[in-house]
Amino acid sequence: MDPAASTKIEILDTTLRDGAQGEGLSFSIHDKFEVVRALDKLGITWIEAGNPGSNPKDADFFSQLSKPERAKLCAFGATRKPFSKCADDLQLQTLLKAETEAVSIFGKSWDFHVIDVLKVSIEENLTMICETIEYLKSKGRNVFFDAEHFFDGWKSNPAYALAALETAFKAGADRIVLCDTNGGSFPGEIRAGVEAALMTLGKQAPLLGIHAHNDMGLAVAVSIAAVEAGCTHVQGTLIGFGERCGNTSLAALIPSLQIKLGYSCIPDDALVRISELTRMVAEVANVPIPSSMPYVGSSAFSHKGGMHGDGVLKVNRSFEHIDPMLVGNNRHFLMSEVGGRSAIAERARKIDPSIKRDHQAVRAVAEKIKTLEASGWAFEGADASFELLVCRELGLYKPLFSLLAYRVMSEHPTGQYIACCHAWVKVWVDGQDEVAAAEGNGPVHALDNALRRALRRFYPSLEQVRLTDYKVRVIDGGAATAAKVRVLIESADSHQSWSTVGVSDDIIDASRNALVDSIEYKLMEIS
Amino acid sequence: MDPAASTKIEILDTTLRDGAQGEGLSFSIHDKFEVVRALDKLGITWIEAGNPGSNPKDADFFSQLSKPERAKLCAFGATRKPFSKCADDLQLQTLLKAETEAVSIFGKSWDFHVIDVLKVSIEENLTMICETIEYLKSKGRNVFFDAEHFFDGWKSNPAYALAALETAFKAGADRIVLCDTNGGSFPGEIRAGVEAALMTLGKQAPLLGIHAHNDMGLAVAVSIAAVEAGCTHVQGTLIGFGERCGNTSLAALIPSLQIKLGYSCIPDDALVRISELTRMVAEVANVPIPSSMPYVGSSAFSHKGGMHGDGVLKVNRSFEHIDPMLVGNNRHFLMSEVGGRSAIAERARKIDPSIKRDHQAVRAVAEKIKTLEASGWAFEGADASFELLVCRELGLYKPLFSLLAYRVMSEHPTGQYIACCHAWVKVWVDGQDEVAAAEGNGPVHALDNALRRALRRFYPSLEQVRLTDYKVRVIDGGAATAAKVRVLIESADSHQSWSTVGVSDDIIDASRNALVDSIEYKLMEIS
Repeated sequence: MDPAASTKIEILDTTLRDGAQGEGLSFSIHDKFEVVRALDKLGITWIEAGNPGSNPKDADFFSQLSKPERAKLCAFGATRKPFSKCADDLQLQTLLKAETEAVSIFGKSWDFHVIDVLKVSIEENLTMICETIEYLKSKGRNVFFDAEHFFDGWKSNPAYALAALETAFKAGADRIVLCDTNGGSFPGEIRAGVEAALMTLGKQAPLLGIHAHNDMGLAVAVSIAAVEAGCTHVQGTLIGFGERCGNTSLAALIPSLQIKLGYSCIPDDALVRISELTRMVAEVANVPIPSSMPYVGSSAFSHKGGMHGDGVLKVNRSFEHIDPMLVGNNRHFLMSEVGGRSAIAERARKIDPSIKRDHQAVRAVAEKIKTLEASGWAFEGADASFELLVCRELGLYKPLFSLLAYRVMSEHPTGQYIACCHAWVKVWVDGQDEVAAAEGNGPVHALDNALRRALRRFYPSLEQVRLTDYKVRVIDGGAATAAKVRVLIESADSHQSWSTVGVSDDIIDASRNALVDSIEYKLMEIS
Repeated sequence: MDPAASTKIEILDTTLRDGAQGEGLSFSIHDKFEVVRALDKLGITWIEAGNPGSNPKDADFFSQLSKPERAKLCAFGATRKPFSKCADDLQLQTLLKAETEAVSIFGKSWDFHVIDVLKVSIEENLTMICETIEYLKSKGRNVFFDAEHFFDGWKSNPAYALAALETAFKAGADRIVLCDTNGGSFPGEIRAGVEAALMTLGKQAPLLGIHAHNDMGLAVAVSIAAVEAGCTHVQGTLIGFGERCGNTSLAALIPSLQIKLGYSCIPDDALVRISELTRMVAEVANVPIPSSMPYVGSSAFSHKGGMHGDGVLKVNRSFEHIDPMLVGNNRHFLMSEVGGRSAIAERARKIDPSIKRDHQAVRAVAEKIKTLEASGWAFEGADASFELLVCRELGLYKPLFSLLAYRVMSEHPTGQYIACCHAWVKVWVDGQDEVAAAEGNGPVHALDNALRRALRRFYPSLEQVRLTDYKVRVIDGGAATAAKVRVLIESADSHQSWSTVGVSDDIIDASRNALVDSIEYKLMEIS
């Protein structure tokens, strides 16, 4: 084998197939287009985009999907039904209709599954594997054989598990993928299984792949062990979505393989976009990625402990295993009682570059944050509210308007001229009062509309501001409907985006706080 | 070494110290008591409960904390300041005042950190380690030495890193803990580092420990590699909380070590409570654990794919790597377009045991769920709303009340006799109308109060129902304040708890749906 070629690892992302099996996930056809676009930008080699034979929505999707720029498409299916002909198998016909460059076919390699779940003889199972692959090859497809439960099968009946691989090889499979379907194998077992497969298949074997699950929190480790043992094709899902505990997270795996172990998985110019593209897929899936996610999470390079924050300010690598820029992520210093004043001073310097750690305003802000955090506030995701707090302490803040009163009403049923939600506000600006009313889809939407309407004659620049995200966090769920809530709002104009926070027992009041902060932040900048 | 003893692994949980450094975490003193209680129930050997020298709140906490039933307490601190005396070191004095059975002391073992961050000579650093340990031993404490950045240090200057360990050993440390502080080491490097440490310290060495971080998604794998190489003390946090990407998750690690690899970490009667106790700590921390968390997550044994669900119904172990009962978790079958009718039938049998997969109601429910899911509904966390849906399709549902109209108002400022939120409702029960009004902390609380007040003369049993949790999920954050929201409500009486869901553009309307479902569910049962 050419040593240079040995460092190339082919990546297959199955977010839209195995990932979509994850609890709480459901992709519309439009969502799927977006995911394909993001994976294509990331330079993923193969996108396994669905299971057309088992899901009519996936069949529709393939018929509407146009070829990505760089990535190649793959559709997923199963070996033919027992004791039947491939040409008569509806599932295989639907799979071919997807017209992808490759098809993945899963087949059984654990004798227990063949006998007790599929309920056919172990010979018939091998015939199913052989005939299905030969049939799909005859139709001009690249065929990837997913050996389901390979490692469990190999542990219980190695001869049969290896016979399944050999059958697929001889039938012409282009990839043979070893699956740890139940996620119960340790890295050492994976290594041994891969070595046994390589030994059986010999030098002429097609690329060997690994497909791991995270049921023991070991999917990344297991995938690395498989690559080190000789696998050159790796399957996973960008974020780690998938059945039960999920698949191997490619966003956690690829940077380790490429930056630290010298393998080549995706183009280097794509690697620096991996944080952004992972968040984009999370947005589409509408599942927030854990802030603690390796490499790409928003906290992956956050420093809270006073000592760690101070250390990183002195020498970055003192508490960072890689430079966050390599994966397009950012370093953060967090506010908090343990965070210490260095981090607050670092951020306050955005407003006044002369501010040092022992500035009196830094002390005051630290005190204030401590008190507010104790009652449920959090400034970690609300930079603009934090900066307003600093401005107030520095005496740089002058109120540009005041929300004197508001009233928000939701009612049902609605009459001919009455929307479900409406709001009324009264504001004060520079000695003048103004009232305005507006309707909305929900109570906060109505309040937001009324507030902007009242202010726009004084501050026309507010027309450019859009609210781009709205999050609600119930802080003390145990108090149920009387619980305190924290609202985070993200706003943007054509130049920048900013985030603000509000906390209250009353969701309307918490939203009002975040809305008012958002508008003040925008206005301070222009004043 | 006694072979039986070699299988005992001592666990130290640092949720309240290293874990508390995680982004978004903040524990009150009351929260900390709750966490200690949960960890004690789990049979964790050592609880590292805080850093009294750097955080006054932690010092208070130790002074108020009474000794747990089984677990032993540990307080965390640092080696003494450079060029000073231990007896004059305020941090060490505060550490001793915590009066714990053990103290953990971190010291530097990476020469780069000593020179560039601490800015002392490499000799003075060793003196600091030696004198600090000797001093704390002279005060009668068990001393655990945390060799910060051991693996990075060992990779760059092995002689110095090992000299730091030897210094701690000779000074009398009771545990020597090898830390991968930046989380950048692979299992193979960890194994080699542990072996080098064991070789240097020899047979008389104290217990060797591992402290890993999850920056590459490898913390569990690295901890297992360290144990296999000879570490018998393992540090982590139950849920995996911690700086950046977190510490080793003990809930993910302990079941693998104990059930699969034969080590003994916690009592077996505690292992079956690990799911419950992990969720309890998550509740206290107010951070939902990922549903996909290995072993303890709510999806860890969930089956969505039609084929997987069918397989597990035939033979459980076909798609489960362990029996969920071993860790006190449960098997779930999820509703969804891919889930197929078997799972729906399985759950519908709770209402009518005769229902089969091809029952007409099962088909109808599957269709209905498909449509509702497309517009943002999710029944996975809302069993009671799902069962109401099934009852309606089976014709078992008769409306016990109807909410004819409501009006909810939030206003500011509030007058002498006006609360910030009040609601009015009109209900119909069995031919009779009733109106009621109520106030609340927030608009949903007011609506909830008014609805119960209107119904209680007809259904006194509602007095026993409490709402125990309230969650809001913004479904399409990009639409900001006009976004759709999904509300999940959990209710309980003295016998059971149940959960319901509502979806709308209007948070009040979504909450109304979940509230009405909750009440209907309760009333159906008694009718």
